Amino acid sequence: MSSHSDALALVADDMQRVDLKMQATGDIFAPLSGAINLLLDSGGKRLRPALAILTSKLYEAADHEEVVALAAAVEMLHSATLVHDDVIDGSLLRRGQATLNASWSQGATILAGDFVFARAAYFAAETNNIRVMKIFSQTLMTIVEGELRQLYALRNWSQPKDTYYQRIYGKTAALFAAATEAAAVLGHAPENEISLLRDYGYNVGMAFQIMDDILDFVGDPGKVGKPVGGDLRQGTVTLPVFHYLQLHPEALQIMQASGNGRDGSLLSQLISDIARSPAIDATRREAVQFIETAKACLASWPPGQHRQALLDLADYVVVRSL
Amino acid sequence: MSSHSDALALVADDMQRVDLKMQATGDIFAPLSGAINLLLDSGGKRLRPALAILTSKLYEAADHEEVVALAAAVEMLHSATLVHDDVIDGSLLRRGQATLNASWSQGATILAGDFVFARAAYFAAETNNIRVMKIFSQTLMTIVEGELRQLYALRNWSQPKDTYYQRIYGKTAALFAAATEAAAVLGHAPENEISLLRDYGYNVGMAFQIMDDILDFVGDPGKVGKPVGGDLRQGTVTLPVFHYLQLHPEALQIMQASGNGRDGSLLSQLISDIARSPAIDATRREAVQFIETAKACLASWPPGQHRQALLDLADYVVVRSL
Repeated sequence: MSSHSDALALVADDMQRVDLKMQATGDIFAPLSGAINLLLDSGGKRLRPALAILTSKLYEAADHEEVVALAAAVEMLHSATLVHDDVIDGSLLRRGQATLNASWSQGATILAGDFVFARAAYFAAETNNIRVMKIFSQTLMTIVEGELRQLYALRNWSQPKDTYYQRIYGKTAALFAAATEAAAVLGHAPENEISLLRDYGYNVGMAFQIMDDILDFVGDPGKVGKPVGGDLRQGTVTLPVFHYLQLHPEALQIMQASGNGRDGSLLSQLISDIARSPAIDATRREAVQFIETAKACLASWPPGQHRQALLDLADYVVVRSL
Repeated sequence: MSSHSDALALVADDMQRVDLKMQATGDIFAPLSGAINLLLDSGGKRLRPALAILTSKLYEAADHEEVVALAAAVEMLHSATLVHDDVIDGSLLRRGQATLNASWSQGATILAGDFVFARAAYFAAETNNIRVMKIFSQTLMTIVEGELRQLYALRNWSQPKDTYYQRIYGKTAALFAAATEAAAVLGHAPENEISLLRDYGYNVGMAFQIMDDILDFVGDPGKVGKPVGGDLRQGTVTLPVFHYLQLHPEALQIMQASGNGRDGSLLSQLISDIARSPAIDATRREAVQFIETAKACLASWPPGQHRQALLDLADYVVVRSL
């Protein structure tokens, strides 16, 4: 069995072309190209474009340039949403580095995010595929709607667990699903395969976000690049919290009392209690379940290095530490 | 000669279809569909979609559905930029009505703007035309870059006049040009006609923004829906100011002294001086010049009701009072 890094090595050349495409801002307003390069340098994992490229490699009919354009569109769209998220949260750090928000005025940061959205849309158009364009813009609507739902659900401590899955679909899994679906479309895959590959991406994305939500409690702040327990402090109820509340219903009162971050010490204690509780393992089991479903979607493909790489990347999602 | 309202009557049916398309949000998060309908009800002039539809009527080959999708994309894109502008400016009023920004949290308003961008991109994809998609996303980049330049130029009182034309191209004329260019593309027009119709849109857009900048000084606040002199109070130097400074170079000191809006009374006096000065007429002459150029772009078309309507709408731009 090969590893996650082998899987990425398989698409290293293409990923470099994606990076070059994203960096080539051309002759635009200098502060804006500076901002874009700051974003690109801030070291994302580039998992979404890697999934798009690997998926396309299941099909010889996929046009190379168009796939690189799709991968760049997906990563730029992801970056744009992060820029606006940071404005909305007032976050000054992401992945351990200063956000654009930390050095630019709020207005300029909003506009920089808009520019990155527009650039993502331009890359999507460069796939020369109307169906991909529709997937792309539909996904952006889903993402934004998910973020808005999350904003409305803040500090709503007793929301049903269903809303969690709905939110992380919008926030994360929708774009993973779009990346693999659109790659299959560019490969001229038959409809049933497009659907299976979309499901693969969806399930990997769900697991990815669940792991992110676990790492928010148990991750090494130095690696994750932000302080522990940030979600709960902000009022976002994630899956570990739902599992913890099942075991300790009384914790709801602590959350309600700590309300608007007024009583930080009680909340800090709760965050460390959750991190050491069986809720973490119960949550991880759910992530693993999504990964098993993702891998099952690939069962009907013959063995091969690209299929194997997709299986390996799925496994990586639930063992990663940042 | 027919009037501006005759011109709009010619496309009333299509415009109604555009409105219906924009209103049909489907099954989305209720506060979001509420916000979109608030935006649509706030009574824009719908000049951009009208220009797209009228332009397409010069060509029998233009597909009706695709043109309606283009018109909706153009208007939604315009709305999205207004939503973010209002967040950036902190504006609570637009066209005399409360902005989304006035009732929603800032974060929710940013996301609502993002959603409207995504919806505009989806409509653009519904034109089923890759070239239109590229025009659309390129235009969004130009608009945002123009707004960012404007933000950086705030309270830079001694900037060269050239920067003004560059900014209003980005802010306004780029989208007018895109609307008429894309309509010609959907009509399968020959390249030289696409280029002429783009130039028509560009020149109408430049004149439109110059008139907006005049109305900021001399408009009826009740009609325009915002207080007089807002641009200068915010630190935006517009064409009437450039013309006034040519006549009264000493006014530069007042602007510099009034700097960050600290001395409102001096600035109020300056605003009313500009409004009653020959700078207004000199500015209006520039707008009329752009309109003459716009109309000249249509010279090679045979007479007809749609060409006449485009000429009439161009004339309307420089006589309108709101």
